[in-house]
Amino acid sequence: MKSILCHTQTFARIEDRLKPFAAEVYPVTMDDDSQIAHPWGGGDGADVGDLSIVYGTQDIYFSKAAPTFFKLLMEAPSIDWFQSSAAGIEHPLLQAVGLKAGVYTASHEQSPAIAEWVIWAGLDHFQGGPERRAAQADETWQRMEFRELSDTHWLIVGFGHIGRASAQRLRALGAKVTGVRRTGGSDPDADRMIQPADMASALGEVDAVLLSLPLSPDTEGIADAAFFAAMRPGALFANVGRGKLVDEAALIAGLDAGRPGHAALDVTATEPLPKGHPIWSHPKITLTPHISALTEAAKHRTDALFLTNLEAFLSGGPLTNLIDKSAFA
Amino acid sequence: MKSILCHTQTFARIEDRLKPFAAEVYPVTMDDDSQIAHPWGGGDGADVGDLSIVYGTQDIYFSKAAPTFFKLLMEAPSIDWFQSSAAGIEHPLLQAVGLKAGVYTASHEQSPAIAEWVIWAGLDHFQGGPERRAAQADETWQRMEFRELSDTHWLIVGFGHIGRASAQRLRALGAKVTGVRRTGGSDPDADRMIQPADMASALGEVDAVLLSLPLSPDTEGIADAAFFAAMRPGALFANVGRGKLVDEAALIAGLDAGRPGHAALDVTATEPLPKGHPIWSHPKITLTPHISALTEAAKHRTDALFLTNLEAFLSGGPLTNLIDKSAFA
Repeated sequence: MKSILCHTQTFARIEDRLKPFAAEVYPVTMDDDSQIAHPWGGGDGADVGDLSIVYGTQDIYFSKAAPTFFKLLMEAPSIDWFQSSAAGIEHPLLQAVGLKAGVYTASHEQSPAIAEWVIWAGLDHFQGGPERRAAQADETWQRMEFRELSDTHWLIVGFGHIGRASAQRLRALGAKVTGVRRTGGSDPDADRMIQPADMASALGEVDAVLLSLPLSPDTEGIADAAFFAAMRPGALFANVGRGKLVDEAALIAGLDAGRPGHAALDVTATEPLPKGHPIWSHPKITLTPHISALTEAAKHRTDALFLTNLEAFLSGGPLTNLIDKSAFA
Repeated sequence: MKSILCHTQTFARIEDRLKPFAAEVYPVTMDDDSQIAHPWGGGDGADVGDLSIVYGTQDIYFSKAAPTFFKLLMEAPSIDWFQSSAAGIEHPLLQAVGLKAGVYTASHEQSPAIAEWVIWAGLDHFQGGPERRAAQADETWQRMEFRELSDTHWLIVGFGHIGRASAQRLRALGAKVTGVRRTGGSDPDADRMIQPADMASALGEVDAVLLSLPLSPDTEGIADAAFFAAMRPGALFANVGRGKLVDEAALIAGLDAGRPGHAALDVTATEPLPKGHPIWSHPKITLTPHISALTEAAKHRTDALFLTNLEAFLSGGPLTNLIDKSAFA
């Protein structure tokens, strides 16, 4: 019998689908008050010294129990398999747990949610959402033209799961997409793929730029003053990667100079962003608090991934989204 | 030689593409000050008593020259062909010109623009745009979940060009679509088609309702108190048809009672909507001033339609989007 540790809410979603595995596993749950329970019995019922499988989800990462959860994982004698609901692997706690676990698998099931955020941000810019809302508040019947997404060209910097999911939806709506990745080449989900060396010239050819890169020493501060100066006046800049990809002072100076014309940010260099930071109140910035992945549908997709991986784990088959830990070195 | 009357701006867009027809047609333009010009010469140069082809576009309909334009059409001895950039044919002026013209063709090239407006309105509702903007204005880092469009079911009432274009884009983003039309049946662009008699029960099964109907004695006031009471609490109501499809007092009462949860309106019963009307300031209404068709891309598509129809008209071939004038009787 192997234990599966997860948040109480996560367990509530998957309990029925865990039952077929009841001969091999038993659940151990943690609630927001860090209380441990063994809803099916099993184990010694007293602690989680017998951790085998850990399913870490947003339910626990964003809970006040998160510190206890990670402390418990670090103190456990061993962990056989850690399935995270997150795609990103750069957080020190996830890396520490990942290094300890026999195997560490990630999830890219947030990508469709994030891609919808990108479409939302793109449409609101090209339809003139801020101007429309201002006219409504002013009770002014002011006919304004807008630009169709079908008439725009996007540069997607980073063509992993999120970049690809965004490209698929943009192209389904008729937009043109150029993707940037190290290997360049061609891709069925882009009109054109380029390598990073060609990015600077491409910035001047597009109506919108999406950053969907992981953070690394190579990518930190990639969106700097030269980057913004290379963009078209009025173009949209969107970031769903990490805040530190952006030189925020350069972004604000760029917005004030008209390049880009608007920024849509789901991430900032410091999170939570402190009150009074100029990003909050800049009239050309749409800011959301790192929530572009937060949907019920993403949770359900991730649960389905966990259950598929559970079956593989128990039968010795190959796991999906296995992380190569050499990246943590 | 046949004349083609259009707005100066329209002519500027199509002049190069008219040149191949220069042996058969000559342009007559009207500007915002109602000044007539014959940019290629031709005709008698003095008036438009020789009207043959009229290309009516948003450039003239929304110009201060519009009254002069329509007066001139009504006073002309005859009009051979009237191509309108509008889809709707219920406006009395368009009907009068249409009855006078030998043939009257409409355009559905606004549909992709209107469908993008629908996606904009849908995403802003399901992503919680108003709440996000309030949190940003308050400088509060408040993590809010949202609902993916891929997780929603839409009822599209009226499955003509606009309904279909909206359905195609919603389904490309993963949403489920039920369409309502007189003939019911099935349709490749919908998950299900129903007849009007089944609409009332379907209203309670969907997350969003789109009105994309023409106005007629049958459809006037179709969205009434019973309609809204049949919707799910919190669902979205969107109208891109005509304002008089909606009982606006019932809509406001419905919003105040939570059904629908939000309304996105591009049309109102009275246009322009007078200052002080409660629709302007209702916190659960997104209002745009009948602009969902106003894009450059729609103008270019309509120009392409006009030029295709021009070739057919001059060669005696079949015209696209020919209006059956018996509908005006």
